Amino acid sequence: MTDYRTLRVALLGAGAVGSQVADLLLKHGDELADRAGATLELAGIAVRDVDAKRDTDLPRELFTTDAETLIVGSDIVIELMGGIEPARTQVLHAIASGADVVTANKALLATHGSEVFEAADQVGAEVYYEAAAAGAIPIIRPLRDSLAGDRVVRIMGIVNGTTNYILDRMDTEGADFADVLAQAQALGYAEADPTADVEGFDAAQKAAILASLAFHTTVPLDAVHREGITSVDAAMIESARHAGYVIKLLAVCERLTADDGSESISVRVYPALVERTHPLASVHGANNAVFVQAEAAGDLMFYGAGAGGVQTASAVLGDVVSAARRHIAGGVGVGESTRANLPAVPIGHVITRYQITLEVDDQPGVLATVAGILSEGRVSIATVEQTVIEADENSRSGGSARLVIGTHKAREQDLSETVERLAASGVVERVVSVLRVEGN
Amino acid sequence: MTDYRTLRVALLGAGAVGSQVADLLLKHGDELADRAGATLELAGIAVRDVDAKRDTDLPRELFTTDAETLIVGSDIVIELMGGIEPARTQVLHAIASGADVVTANKALLATHGSEVFEAADQVGAEVYYEAAAAGAIPIIRPLRDSLAGDRVVRIMGIVNGTTNYILDRMDTEGADFADVLAQAQALGYAEADPTADVEGFDAAQKAAILASLAFHTTVPLDAVHREGITSVDAAMIESARHAGYVIKLLAVCERLTADDGSESISVRVYPALVERTHPLASVHGANNAVFVQAEAAGDLMFYGAGAGGVQTASAVLGDVVSAARRHIAGGVGVGESTRANLPAVPIGHVITRYQITLEVDDQPGVLATVAGILSEGRVSIATVEQTVIEADENSRSGGSARLVIGTHKAREQDLSETVERLAASGVVERVVSVLRVEGN
Repeated sequence: MTDYRTLRVALLGAGAVGSQVADLLLKHGDELADRAGATLELAGIAVRDVDAKRDTDLPRELFTTDAETLIVGSDIVIELMGGIEPARTQVLHAIASGADVVTANKALLATHGSEVFEAADQVGAEVYYEAAAAGAIPIIRPLRDSLAGDRVVRIMGIVNGTTNYILDRMDTEGADFADVLAQAQALGYAEADPTADVEGFDAAQKAAILASLAFHTTVPLDAVHREGITSVDAAMIESARHAGYVIKLLAVCERLTADDGSESISVRVYPALVERTHPLASVHGANNAVFVQAEAAGDLMFYGAGAGGVQTASAVLGDVVSAARRHIAGGVGVGESTRANLPAVPIGHVITRYQITLEVDDQPGVLATVAGILSEGRVSIATVEQTVIEADENSRSGGSARLVIGTHKAREQDLSETVERLAASGVVERVVSVLRVEGN
Repeated sequence: MTDYRTLRVALLGAGAVGSQVADLLLKHGDELADRAGATLELAGIAVRDVDAKRDTDLPRELFTTDAETLIVGSDIVIELMGGIEPARTQVLHAIASGADVVTANKALLATHGSEVFEAADQVGAEVYYEAAAAGAIPIIRPLRDSLAGDRVVRIMGIVNGTTNYILDRMDTEGADFADVLAQAQALGYAEADPTADVEGFDAAQKAAILASLAFHTTVPLDAVHREGITSVDAAMIESARHAGYVIKLLAVCERLTADDGSESISVRVYPALVERTHPLASVHGANNAVFVQAEAAGDLMFYGAGAGGVQTASAVLGDVVSAARRHIAGGVGVGESTRANLPAVPIGHVITRYQITLEVDDQPGVLATVAGILSEGRVSIATVEQTVIEADENSRSGGSARLVIGTHKAREQDLSETVERLAASGVVERVVSVLRVEGN
């Protein structure tokens, strides 16, 4: 075996990802040393409770509750605690101590990314976070490095496995949201408190990270428009299928160019209609995929497992090897490229297509009235389908009809004002749903 | 504008990719400077003939025939000449002159990669080649960096756009190889001399590059088993479709583990049957995709344009920005990781599934004879389908039948010896085709 320099690695956190990272570091030590050009010595694992029951046979002497002491003197600190604090404090401590940081902490980067990257810049350290955006899928390096000479126009990502699992099962089984969520919880695909996933918070954090990289701009989390999937029901899925669509929770990051050539960006997370022939439509189960459109490269897609302990550990260890190689090669960290500083626009400025589903009185002139309101609101109709709904006691008139309107591209603000006017008009009984259509 | 350090960039070659690279470097200079942290000054473009007609409005004073002088004093040399010489000499000259090299030259890297990487190692230079393996698809950094902490088990790549275009049109139109090739040539999807594409030479070069990265092993081009698609006909495509498959030219890079735990690799290019539900089956037209299976990360897929001037230019410019960032950050190149040194096994050692199509005498006992020969040859039958072919004057007997046999996993050497025995047996009139089935 080659005689390599030894680098001291500190691990913070021993959850699903952390214990796998420790396991693989110990198991494949020689192989990783050959690839990194350095021996990676796992100096310790900081946890809250050394005696907690763990599903792993890691040597007990590696565990410590003293993260601060462990960090001092380490070359690489792997932060897998999650959450903002104490992760933020320990990451800044690691950077100040001269270590490179590897983290999978999307919440931390989406809320305190600037602080962390600036701290690293000041001392020439590097922060690696391949696992923070789409689990095992290599997307950070492609955006940060491979596409650094191109101009990203749009990203559409399925970046949350739990919601994709739920929507996929709703689509294949015709089941309702609550039922599938309960099943997903029983199978471990969804957490007991599913809010972070189903309300789109997790996807929004990842969208902020992806948009920051793609547009070389610091995108704060509150610039990300966020809607979850809790209002998606079996009828919406069925109606989408009928029209040739599937509903996916998308993280959309888009570059907008105004008539005067000035540029801005839009970053948003919502359930959207995607044509069944689009590559994103065939992303099933808990898988993730990131579809990237760039001016020169054209359409690219990155597909794989978005979560899971061992899968995410793969991305973390790739970062550890990169950090080790940089330690051996010398030089300062190249830092984040955020000099484009594009402003993020509110959701009202977004231009996309929509599908509006209405229940209307089944009377002469109703379609003309609806079409008139749309036209006044500068929303142009592309397709329309009217079907008769059987009269029932909940319906105000003797007969109702369902109108499914597909629009041409419209401005979100025009669209939402128009929908309000439709809802207030005498002829519309109920606005059933308004969904964006993404992916040309 | 920030006052950046200026880096001198030399471009060798002004073909489809080179002229796009020059164009984008000039057009997006300010933006690229912001991302790289350095102004990229295009010092000149070396060509064979300054006065040749070019479909570009690049300033004439940039062109020179004196590549050697242009290279001296350059920080980054972009080699887009293609071919082995004079590309090899100029790349080595660039490295010796202290420049980092960006190249899209798969032929050079597949045949002289070790020489180039060793020369770079010795002076601490770096060689970037994102465009050499799958055009615009970011696959080099994911394999080299993101998956550096994982163990790649298998790569299945559609890495040649021309052959995928031809096979895809044969599949959708039921057309024959020669007709589609002629159309592809007329449309510019295939070259006048299509040998490099249709005989699998281009795919084999890319396979060698991908396998070297994935397995941290120098894989010489002559270790790659290569078969082209010229023998694929409409009947084979139709028969594949009937069995639920599509035929794709695959670059397969595989890690093999022997019973004693010792490891080796197999790298091969051939037309293979892929199940229609596999993600690779839906890669249409001239697109490329690389499907990667890793121990921890699981299944990943990278999809996009595999060729094209502007698409490939995107990958080249990403490398240029990376090289510039490294110049600014300092430190030596990290070099290639080839310390695993796994031996490549010949095609005979490969274990996969097969589909064997035979024309046999339609007589009692024939199936038993065929099954007996397979069993003796240690080839286990998974599926069999027999259909009667109408008797015609070319047939030796009154009636013939077609046998399509799907095998379980078998060793290639056992399989080919068994097929020879089948061909020599009295009952088999013709071995119509033998195809490997890839992708579990």
